[in-house]
Amino acid sequence: MVERLSAEARKAAFKELSGWSEVSGRDAIARTFTFKDFNEAFGFMARVAVVAEKSDHHPEWRNVYKTVEVVLSTHDADGVTQRDVDLAKAMNTIAGQLGQS
Amino acid sequence: MVERLSAEARKAAFKELSGWSEVSGRDAIARTFTFKDFNEAFGFMARVAVVAEKSDHHPEWRNVYKTVEVVLSTHDADGVTQRDVDLAKAMNTIAGQLGQS
Repeated sequence: MVERLSAEARKAAFKELSGWSEVSGRDAIARTFTFKDFNEAFGFMARVAVVAEKSDHHPEWRNVYKTVEVVLSTHDADGVTQRDVDLAKAMNTIAGQLGQS
Repeated sequence: MVERLSAEARKAAFKELSGWSEVSGRDAIARTFTFKDFNEAFGFMARVAVVAEKSDHHPEWRNVYKTVEVVLSTHDADGVTQRDVDLAKAMNTIAGQLGQS
């Protein structure tokens, strides 16, 4: 069982999570990624999907052409856990490699 | 320039579009696909992405684990066109092959 992050742990995690913000009215974190085009946006999603499946922790995400809106939260813990922070970091890394704007 | 479907053409198209419905308050069509798991849901998205890119007509879609919520509308025409109907049909075919439940 993964536990929700304490306020302190969350604060520390956020310092390393460029571009992410807290979702209002819900214990979750979100980021919108904008790419060059659909090809790049979906390429991002494909790479993240493999990471998500491997770690058995999946995003909620919405894609419209070149944008990908992501919300992360851990269902089992009913809030943000280290698993969300890890997936958010992986997404930032992948997006960085793809030249996310 | 693709034109919005007439009421008659839309009615005819809907007869062949199993599972799709009109979006309230917006000229768009929608369907939620439910698969066995994330692997299958994302496999569906990957196959649809290739079709969408080839025809240069892209869906708005949201994925949460094994579900994929899709909204189709043609931006240039500000409403539903034959391009949406074609993409919707392609999605139904792909989902059918994957055993969408």
